[in-house]
Amino acid sequence: MIKEYVVGVDIGGQTTKIGVVNRMGNIVAQTVINSKYGRNEENIFMDSVCETIKELVKEVGLENVNGVGIGAPNGNFYTGEVVDAANLEWAKGKAIPLAKTISEKLGGIPVTLTNDANAAAVGEMHYGAAKGMKNFIMITLGTGVGSGIIINGELVYGHDGFAGELGHVCAVRENGRSCGCGKSGCLEAYASAIGVARTAKERLAQSDEPSLLRGKEDITSKDVYDAAVQGDKLALDIFDYTGRMLGRSFADFVAFSAPQAIVLFGGLARAGEFIFKPIREEMEANLISIWKGKVELLPSALKESDAAILGASALAW
Amino acid sequence: MIKEYVVGVDIGGQTTKIGVVNRMGNIVAQTVINSKYGRNEENIFMDSVCETIKELVKEVGLENVNGVGIGAPNGNFYTGEVVDAANLEWAKGKAIPLAKTISEKLGGIPVTLTNDANAAAVGEMHYGAAKGMKNFIMITLGTGVGSGIIINGELVYGHDGFAGELGHVCAVRENGRSCGCGKSGCLEAYASAIGVARTAKERLAQSDEPSLLRGKEDITSKDVYDAAVQGDKLALDIFDYTGRMLGRSFADFVAFSAPQAIVLFGGLARAGEFIFKPIREEMEANLISIWKGKVELLPSALKESDAAILGASALAW
Repeated sequence: MIKEYVVGVDIGGQTTKIGVVNRMGNIVAQTVINSKYGRNEENIFMDSVCETIKELVKEVGLENVNGVGIGAPNGNFYTGEVVDAANLEWAKGKAIPLAKTISEKLGGIPVTLTNDANAAAVGEMHYGAAKGMKNFIMITLGTGVGSGIIINGELVYGHDGFAGELGHVCAVRENGRSCGCGKSGCLEAYASAIGVARTAKERLAQSDEPSLLRGKEDITSKDVYDAAVQGDKLALDIFDYTGRMLGRSFADFVAFSAPQAIVLFGGLARAGEFIFKPIREEMEANLISIWKGKVELLPSALKESDAAILGASALAW
Repeated sequence: MIKEYVVGVDIGGQTTKIGVVNRMGNIVAQTVINSKYGRNEENIFMDSVCETIKELVKEVGLENVNGVGIGAPNGNFYTGEVVDAANLEWAKGKAIPLAKTISEKLGGIPVTLTNDANAAAVGEMHYGAAKGMKNFIMITLGTGVGSGIIINGELVYGHDGFAGELGHVCAVRENGRSCGCGKSGCLEAYASAIGVARTAKERLAQSDEPSLLRGKEDITSKDVYDAAVQGDKLALDIFDYTGRMLGRSFADFVAFSAPQAIVLFGGLARAGEFIFKPIREEMEANLISIWKGKVELLPSALKESDAAILGASALAW
């Protein structure tokens, strides 16, 4: 018999969000712990996660929890391991058997792990903009660019569990920007938060054009958005450039899996038409005729703070 | 109860191959008809297909045939239609209800339609190089560049049935060659038979370098292969260039679906290491670390003349 509650755990580079979710998709209890707790000692971190879960489910009872779903960078569904996650000190250069360990520490409760973007895609399919869709692609625009691909209502894991690394397709072939992955020209080097900041820095250096962004340190997509709202031409140019990079890659993604929609999640996605318009235009210009005007481009319909917990928790049903 | 035989029909631009296949995957009877028969009259062509099938199954008996599987350019699995196939005069600018019509003309026998590259992928999975694999990508290098994508042991059809148009991902962003699809820079414009001929023409025009290919009309991949075997530098360069175009796109395909293998089918694939070496090198150079050295690159293991019939027929089980 399926029990009444599940637990969703979203492990990010900075914080780990943990929530108890009921069958209606309501988060009935939630909290946040520090992902850096324990530094490079994975067991200290995992103990902290388990203690927090035990505390959080006290009211509903651990015996009424169907399972735990976890989304984490480089989380592998097949092996249950977090493998060499650059942003998690306790998982750098190591393969951590996260699902198995947490299950054991919680008395054998089923634990399902996947990467964070996959978890977001599942959340969007169950509770968000892709509700009822069987074929869509989730693109997460955060510190990096992640993706979760849904085909026939199921996440694509591929042969090894690592499918859906669309931040590392090639956006620029010649003289592309170096990417954190070691390659150059990756989409992530242009459309991530870091990519947007690099674009801003480049544009500001290339001219003396006045801009509200001049003099700012560590420019975020929020800064660019605020400037764009005020009509700042350079800020609008940054969105246009970033959107076109995304749009032309999206056209290639469509040629692969013919999705009904591409759903955008994360900071950059909140810039609305400033970014959606250039994405849509460039995607349409690069689609073959059978798909022109047929692929929806949607913003996530989940609150950012809830999406990750809901997505991770949906894995546990 | 599943019956003893199926019929496979492979509709190409020039010829249509029809075969009767038993459960072991042996073609027990086969023949070829002209795809241009009837010119732009789809009913004349479909009548000819049905008459041929009836004749071919006489010995085994139509009542022992489980179904008919058809592979055709722009064949749609969901609708059973061939939609605006540029190379088939009777389907140009029209949607032809091929599956329904042929089923009716054959007394209601189940008919399954898909595109030709998808059919080849299914054939490879059941009888060829991808036997036993659950995740691979089939790339067909012929007049055009086609693809069939297998995820979790199933063909990817996408939202609309047209998924897997990997010949039309962008290989060259700036000043790319114009493609038959109306876009420019498509992989097909470089790695198809026509693409190889264009590369040869360009290279021959760019220098006075002696080559066995000079003076030849309509250079085919076979011509380039024959010259390469004799050590012709320009021919080797053509394979290198074409292989690198394919390899860098393949790295992006791997980032999407993390396949166990990419299987190459068609004329160009028969050039062996002349083409496989540059593909492999460029693919490896563009893969992120988790996949380096892990994705197999395989030639089709099916005889070209049989593959299409076997693939199409496998749809009918």
